[in-house]
Amino acid sequence: MAGSTFGTIFKITTWGESHGAALGVVIDGCPAGLPLCEEDIQVYLDRRKPGTSSITTPRKEDDKVEILSGVFEGRTTGSPISLLVRNTSQKPGDYSEIASYYRPGHADYTYDKKYGFRDYRGGGRSSGRETLGRVAAGAIACKILEQLGVRVCAYTRSIGTIQANLDHFDRAAILQTATAMPDRKADNDAISYLEGAKRNSNSVGGCMECIVEGVPAGIGDPVFEKLDANLAKAVMSIGAVKAVEIGDGYQVSLRFGTDNNDAFRMENGRVVKATNHAGGILGGISDGSSILIRAHVKPTPSIYTTQETVNKSGENININIKGRHDPIVIPRAVVVMECMTALTILDAMLMNMSARLENVVDFYRKQS
Amino acid sequence: MAGSTFGTIFKITTWGESHGAALGVVIDGCPAGLPLCEEDIQVYLDRRKPGTSSITTPRKEDDKVEILSGVFEGRTTGSPISLLVRNTSQKPGDYSEIASYYRPGHADYTYDKKYGFRDYRGGGRSSGRETLGRVAAGAIACKILEQLGVRVCAYTRSIGTIQANLDHFDRAAILQTATAMPDRKADNDAISYLEGAKRNSNSVGGCMECIVEGVPAGIGDPVFEKLDANLAKAVMSIGAVKAVEIGDGYQVSLRFGTDNNDAFRMENGRVVKATNHAGGILGGISDGSSILIRAHVKPTPSIYTTQETVNKSGENININIKGRHDPIVIPRAVVVMECMTALTILDAMLMNMSARLENVVDFYRKQS
Amino acid sequence: MAGSTFGTIFKITTWGESHGAALGVVIDGCPAGLPLCEEDIQVYLDRRKPGTSSITTPRKEDDKVEILSGVFEGRTTGSPISLLVRNTSQKPGDYSEIASYYRPGHADYTYDKKYGFRDYRGGGRSSGRETLGRVAAGAIACKILEQLGVRVCAYTRSIGTIQANLDHFDRAAILQTATAMPDRKADNDAISYLEGAKRNSNSVGGCMECIVEGVPAGIGDPVFEKLDANLAKAVMSIGAVKAVEIGDGYQVSLRFGTDNNDAFRMENGRVVKATNHAGGILGGISDGSSILIRAHVKPTPSIYTTQETVNKSGENININIKGRHDPIVIPRAVVVMECMTALTILDAMLMNMSARLENVVDFYRKQS
Amino acid sequence: MAGSTFGTIFKITTWGESHGAALGVVIDGCPAGLPLCEEDIQVYLDRRKPGTSSITTPRKEDDKVEILSGVFEGRTTGSPISLLVRNTSQKPGDYSEIASYYRPGHADYTYDKKYGFRDYRGGGRSSGRETLGRVAAGAIACKILEQLGVRVCAYTRSIGTIQANLDHFDRAAILQTATAMPDRKADNDAISYLEGAKRNSNSVGGCMECIVEGVPAGIGDPVFEKLDANLAKAVMSIGAVKAVEIGDGYQVSLRFGTDNNDAFRMENGRVVKATNHAGGILGGISDGSSILIRAHVKPTPSIYTTQETVNKSGENININIKGRHDPIVIPRAVVVMECMTALTILDAMLMNMSARLENVVDFYRKQS
Repeated sequence: MAGSTFGTIFKITTWGESHGAALGVVIDGCPAGLPLCEEDIQVYLDRRKPGTSSITTPRKEDDKVEILSGVFEGRTTGSPISLLVRNTSQKPGDYSEIASYYRPGHADYTYDKKYGFRDYRGGGRSSGRETLGRVAAGAIACKILEQLGVRVCAYTRSIGTIQANLDHFDRAAILQTATAMPDRKADNDAISYLEGAKRNSNSVGGCMECIVEGVPAGIGDPVFEKLDANLAKAVMSIGAVKAVEIGDGYQVSLRFGTDNNDAFRMENGRVVKATNHAGGILGGISDGSSILIRAHVKPTPSIYTTQETVNKSGENININIKGRHDPIVIPRAVVVMECMTALTILDAMLMNMSARLENVVDFYRKQS
Repeated sequence: MAGSTFGTIFKITTWGESHGAALGVVIDGCPAGLPLCEEDIQVYLDRRKPGTSSITTPRKEDDKVEILSGVFEGRTTGSPISLLVRNTSQKPGDYSEIASYYRPGHADYTYDKKYGFRDYRGGGRSSGRETLGRVAAGAIACKILEQLGVRVCAYTRSIGTIQANLDHFDRAAILQTATAMPDRKADNDAISYLEGAKRNSNSVGGCMECIVEGVPAGIGDPVFEKLDANLAKAVMSIGAVKAVEIGDGYQVSLRFGTDNNDAFRMENGRVVKATNHAGGILGGISDGSSILIRAHVKPTPSIYTTQETVNKSGENININIKGRHDPIVIPRAVVVMECMTALTILDAMLMNMSARLENVVDFYRKQS
Repeated sequence: MAGSTFGTIFKITTWGESHGAALGVVIDGCPAGLPLCEEDIQVYLDRRKPGTSSITTPRKEDDKVEILSGVFEGRTTGSPISLLVRNTSQKPGDYSEIASYYRPGHADYTYDKKYGFRDYRGGGRSSGRETLGRVAAGAIACKILEQLGVRVCAYTRSIGTIQANLDHFDRAAILQTATAMPDRKADNDAISYLEGAKRNSNSVGGCMECIVEGVPAGIGDPVFEKLDANLAKAVMSIGAVKAVEIGDGYQVSLRFGTDNNDAFRMENGRVVKATNHAGGILGGISDGSSILIRAHVKPTPSIYTTQETVNKSGENININIKGRHDPIVIPRAVVVMECMTALTILDAMLMNMSARLENVVDFYRKQS
Repeated sequence: MAGSTFGTIFKITTWGESHGAALGVVIDGCPAGLPLCEEDIQVYLDRRKPGTSSITTPRKEDDKVEILSGVFEGRTTGSPISLLVRNTSQKPGDYSEIASYYRPGHADYTYDKKYGFRDYRGGGRSSGRETLGRVAAGAIACKILEQLGVRVCAYTRSIGTIQANLDHFDRAAILQTATAMPDRKADNDAISYLEGAKRNSNSVGGCMECIVEGVPAGIGDPVFEKLDANLAKAVMSIGAVKAVEIGDGYQVSLRFGTDNNDAFRMENGRVVKATNHAGGILGGISDGSSILIRAHVKPTPSIYTTQETVNKSGENININIKGRHDPIVIPRAVVVMECMTALTILDAMLMNMSARLENVVDFYRKQS
C-alpha cells in the first residue's frame, strides 16, 4: 500500500524523490502488442519540463526516459514496463536550513508527523517531480486510447483572474503558449499578470480543464467505482489541486432541475444529449458525450516574502524561502492532469470488457 | 470488481436495488471488540428516511436494519458484519412506461448501454436507496472514530441561493431542521425556496459540507492514496454530486500565495496553523487541523414538467415523470456524506498504524 | 480486508457464522445477462448438505438459498448478487463448556489470540459452515464457465488408505456415492473403513482432486498471479487442507527431466501435449490441456476420544468432545473445492480479456 | 494487474526480463525508519548467484543492486524503495532457433498463446531471473522480521532420492554447501547424484523447506486470507514448484484424527502444542509454534537430450537445447522461498495490527 500504485488492470507504481538518484514508474497490465519507443514517452515528459519561459523555474531538468523492460522488438510484451529517469541537476547543496523548519503550504510538517523524519531535499517524495512517473505512464495510456478512438486534452482554463476564452479554442496553442492556454490573447494577459505577481515575490493560483472525446457510453462502474469518482480521485491526487468539478460542477448547486437536465434526442440514428451539463457522465457511467473535468489549483506555496512558521525545536520563527520556484503550478501540471485522466479512462475501459456475458462468450468463442 | 466495494482495511461491500427484496452491506475488517447493536445503526438510517417533512418524498420507507453476523454477545468479533434492510413499501406497480424510455439526468441510458438491459424499477441499483448500505456501514465507522477522538459532522451549507450562516453554527439544528442546515433561520428561508420550486414542478440543487475534528496529523498516504484524493472519490461517488472541494476549494484559483499559505505557529506546546485555507490536509496528509470537505449537488433530475427524451425504439418523445420524488437531494444526502467521510478517515487511520517501524516493533514487543 | 473477499473482477465476499442468524455471500462483478434462479444455486448447496448417509453428521441443515439482489426478470443485471441462507437448526444449547477451553486441531486458540475473544458457538466463523457462501458463489461461476466451454469436476480421490481407481472413472458416481468417489467399488471399501474408524471414536483424512477441462491456453498471469498460485491459494484456504498439488505434484521432486517434460505435438491441426505431468499449466499459464489440482485433507479434529488440552484459566485438562461431527471432512468438501476452482478459473478468464491490444481494439471497434 | 504485484500493506512490484536492460522491484509500504543499505540486499542476491559450483550454470551473473529511492540518510523514509540490477552478461547471441519453436516444460507456448508473441531471449519474463526482484524485496522483509523477533530459514530438503537428515540440522551448512542442504553428508551424496544426472544430459527435481520461528499467535486472516493460503500462493508462484505442503502436508490424508491432532498444554506459563503436525497454523491463523512450509520442485526443463516438440509453423520437430543451464533449480531457489515466505508473514503481521479495537485505541491515545 502506502499509496504509490494506481489502477486495477492498467496498474502503475511510481517511485522516486526530487533529489534522489532517479525517478520512475512500473506499468503492469499494459496490453501486449502496442508499438512503443522512448520518444513516445519523451514528448509527454518534455511538456512538464521547466526552464522554457519566464514563468517557470529556471532550474534545468533534463529528464531523459529509459525503457528498462516490457518492450521487445518495438512492441509491449504484456510484461511490466519499467521506465527510469535519472536525476541529473541536483547540486549537493546545503539543506540544513530547510531541514530545520516547516515550510507553510508544504508537506514538511505532515511527513515528519507521519514518518518521524523526512527526506527534506527539495521536498523529497512530496515534490512536484513525483509527477514524472505519472506522465511517463500516462503517455502510454494516451497512445492506447488513441487506438480506441479516445482523445484526451487538458489545458489551462484560468490564471488568477485571467480566463481563457473557449469560444476561440486553439488546440495548437496549448502546446505553444507558456501558460498552456488554448487562447493566445489570454496567454499574453496571463503572462503580464504572472510577472506582476513575481515582482511582488508572490505566486498565483489557477484552473485547468480536461476534455475527453470519443469515450463510448457504458464506461465506469456503479456505486464506488463511478467514472467521475475515480476521475475526482485521480485529479485531486495531483499536488496543489483543491477542488474538482465534473461538467458544470459547482454551478449546479444554484440550479433548478429544468435548467440542469440534459434532454436526450436522436441524431443520425444515435442517442445524443441536447446539452452536456452533466459533463458526459450519468450515474457514474459515461453517456457518450464529451467528458469534462475541471481542477482548481492553489498558488505555489514557495513564495519569496517573509513567512511565519515553526522550527523542529518548537519555536516560532520567520523564514525567507530561497531557491528557484515556479510562480504558478499549472502550466506544467496540465500534462499531469491529462495523464491522470487518461490512466483513469483506460483502466475503466479495460475493466468494462467483461460487463456483459454475451461479450465474454463471444470473446472465448472467437479464441477457440 | 464492478464497484460495490470500498476501503482497504475497513472494507465494505454494498448491494441491493430500489425495488428488490432487500438492501444491505457487508463490513469486513472491523476491529474486534466494538460494542454494537442494531440501534447504533438505526439512528443513522433514520436520518436518511423520507416522509418526515414537506420537502421530502411522502414515500414511506421503514428501513429496519438487522445484524446477521459478526457480532457476538454485543461486541464485534472481527468477522464480517452483514447488515440487512428488507424493502417493504414497493408496490408491484406498472413500470412498463418508465422501462420504455430514458429519463434525462438519470442513469437509465448509461446502464442500458453498459449491461444491455436494466432493472428499471425505481432506478434499480442507481437509485438513491443504494446509499442505505453506505450509511449502515458508516454508522459503525463513526462509532469507532468516536473512540479515537474523531468527530465527523456533515450539514447542508446551501439550498439554491439560500446559504446557512455559519457564524451562528447550531449543531443541534442539523438533526432537527428539515433541511439539515445548522442555522434555523436559513432553514426557514430554504423551505420557502423549495416550496416555490415545488409549485413550479421544479427541483433545486445545493451544497453540503462536512467537518472532521480530532484527526491527528499524519493520516493519509502520499501520491495516489492522499487523504483528500480518497475523500474526493468517496464524496463524488454519492449520486448527484458534481464537484468536491477541500478547504477553501475552488476559491484558491483566484488567490495569491501570500493569501493562501497557512502559517504554522506554536500554541500550548503544539504546532498549529494560524489559518486553515488548506482544510486540514497538506501533501495529502492530515495536518491536525479540522478537515473540511464541500460537495455541490445537482437538482433532483426527476421533475414534473414535460421533458424531451428518446425511447428504446429510437424515437424522440415527450415525457411526464410521475411518482413521488424529493425536490432536493441534499437533506437526506447529508448523512451519506458524513458516512462516506467517516469510512475514508477510519480506513486511512487503520492503514497508518504501520507507517513507522518503531510503532510496529513496539506493537509486537507488547504482544510477547 | 480481514479476509472474506476473493477475486478481482468476479469478486465474492462471504459472511456468517455457524450459529449466527444467517450466512451468505455477495458476488460483485458477475457479467450481466446470465439466466439465474435459486434452483441453480440450490443444487450445489445440496451437495454439501449433511445427514444423507452414515458417514456424515446427522445434524439437519436445510440451507435454502434466497436471491436478494442482482437478478431481474430471471437474468443477472451486473449489480451485486446477494445470496442469503438462514440458519434454522441451531439449538440455543449450552456452550459454556466449549467456551472454556481450546479444542485441539481447531481454531479456538488462534481466534482468541487474534481477536481477544471468540464466537464459540459451533466454531463461529471458523466452522465448515462458512463454505456455504463459497459454494453459492461457485455455483454461479460454474454456470458461466459452462457457457465458455469449461467443465469443472471435483471428486474424492482417497479416504485413508482406500484409493478410487481412476481407470474406471464413473462421473455419475461422484454425486451418487456417499463418499463422492468416482468409483463405486472404492466407495464401498471406504465406507467400511470409515465405519471402522467411527467405532474407534476416530476420524479419517483423505485426498480430493479436481479436473478442469476446456480452459483455453493463455489463462493466468505471470509471476504472482500465476494460475497455479491462485489455485493453490483458493484450495489451501478451505479448512483442513494441508497440501496442494498441481499435475504430478509432489512426485516431481523424485523425477529426472526426461521423465517429467511433456513433449508438444500437432494433433488435428492443434498443438497438444503428449503427456500432462504439468497438469495443464506452464509458467503459471494454462496450456490447453486439462488442469489437475489435488488437495490433502486432515482428519476431522473433533474426535470422541479423550484429549489433552488447556482451558482459558491456563490449566492442563482432559476433554471429551460431544456433539455431531462428520468422521471425515472430504465428501462434503468436494463441492467446495469444485467451487473454489471455478471461481479462480473464471476470474482469470475475465482478467485475460485485455491481455492483447488487438483484442481490446476489436472489442471497442465492434461497440461503435 | 497482470500479476507482478504482491502484498497488501508491504506491497512489492517486480519487473524485468532475463535479457532486457535490467531487472528490479519497487517496494511500497515499507515502514519508515529501517536502517538499510545496498549490502543488506546484496547478501541475499548473492545466494541466488550461479557459477559457484559444479552443479550450477557456469553463466556469470553479477547482479549488483542499486537503491534508487526510498532511503535517506541510511534509513527507509516510508516512500517507495526502488531497487535496480543491470543485466550485464547477456551476449547479443542468435535466438532465431529458440524463437522458432516451443521448448517442452517451458512457458514459450503459453506466453505466445496469451500475448500473441513473446520475448524469447532466455525465457524473457518467465525466466528464473525474474526472482531477482523477489529476493531483493525479501531481503528487506527479512530485516524487518528480525526486529520483530521472527527468523525465516529455508533449505534444501531433498535432491532426487537424497534426503537431508534433519536430526543433525546444521544451519551454517545451508549457506556453505553447494546444494543448500543443512547436512554436509547429504550434500556430498546429492552432488554425486547430480553429477550422474549431468553425465546423462539429464536434470533432477527436489524438495525445499522453510521454517519460520518467532511468529506470535494470531497472524493471518480467516477464510480467504488465511496464512497458509497466502503462503501456498507465495510459494507456488515460484517457477517449477508443483506442490506445497504445510506442516505434515500430504501425509495427513492417511492419518487418523488421534494421530494428527496436536494437544495443547501449559509450559512455563504459556500455551504450547505438544506436537506440531499442523505446522504452526490453525484455522489459517498462526498458533505460536514454528511454521513449516514444504515445496516440491520439478527437474529443470532445459535438458540436453533430444526432445520432441512443435515449431511455430505447426510442424512436429526434434530439438536439442543448447546453452548453460542448472541441472537442478533448487539450490538457487531456496533463497527465493525464504524471501516469499518472509514477504507473506510480514504483510500478515502488519495487517494484524488493527485486528483488535483496543489496540487501535491504544495506538492513537499514545500518539496524542
